[in-house]
Amino acid sequence: MPTPEHMTAAIHAYVEAFDKGDPEIAVALFADDATVEDPIGTPLKSGIAAIREFYVGSMQTGAKLALQEPIRIGGDYAAFAFQVQLNLNGNDLAVDVIDTFKFNEAGKVIEMRAFFGPTNMRGFG
Amino acid sequence: MPTPEHMTAAIHAYVEAFDKGDPEIAVALFADDATVEDPIGTPLKSGIAAIREFYVGSMQTGAKLALQEPIRIGGDYAAFAFQVQLNLNGNDLAVDVIDTFKFNEAGKVIEMRAFFGPTNMRGFG
Repeated sequence: MPTPEHMTAAIHAYVEAFDKGDPEIAVALFADDATVEDPIGTPLKSGIAAIREFYVGSMQTGAKLALQEPIRIGGDYAAFAFQVQLNLNGNDLAVDVIDTFKFNEAGKVIEMRAFFGPTNMRGFG
Repeated sequence: MPTPEHMTAAIHAYVEAFDKGDPEIAVALFADDATVEDPIGTPLKSGIAAIREFYVGSMQTGAKLALQEPIRIGGDYAAFAFQVQLNLNGNDLAVDVIDTFKFNEAGKVIEMRAFFGPTNMRGFG
């Protein structure tokens, strides 16, 4: 099972990926057969190609993540709260999100789920 | 699908259950065939009898929950961050947790998972 230190470093790298606008930093955290459910309740993005496409698109919005520590870590899961600020079709948006990452034995994210919905979005700026 | 208002009220009732030390307020939120995985990675508590036993025991620690708003709501899920303060074997503990609740069509919680582990616990007081 991956260590808490490993999982913490992965979450920090995920935040850094958005800071730098570099989708490859995020994609490198995922297993080839990972799934992403973002937002929760929508069809899965399955496999590394679909995940890359998702993060390339996400970062085109200029999204930045403000992590709300501490990261919660139990078993092979990490869960973390954050606020993302982005620009969608010319509108500045702030969205409050909780993500869960499940890690495999190799230390890669095998399942990501993002918990948020319309009540968590608001305009700003 | 239950409304965001319904799910928000359920989370607030859950916090209130601990404030009042009344496990029945928490138990009433769950479906008869619900599962509780608390903490994540441990065996499921399945069915309302096991869930009642769990909350009766939890509240004997004097656990109180400080909710870190906002509750994240998407699809039939609510996710929320909080800190719980409790007394375990004479020791005051603070534990940072993220819970996810999945609701069924009747508006009851069908699946609860609590994300935390050793790195999220510390003594205080």
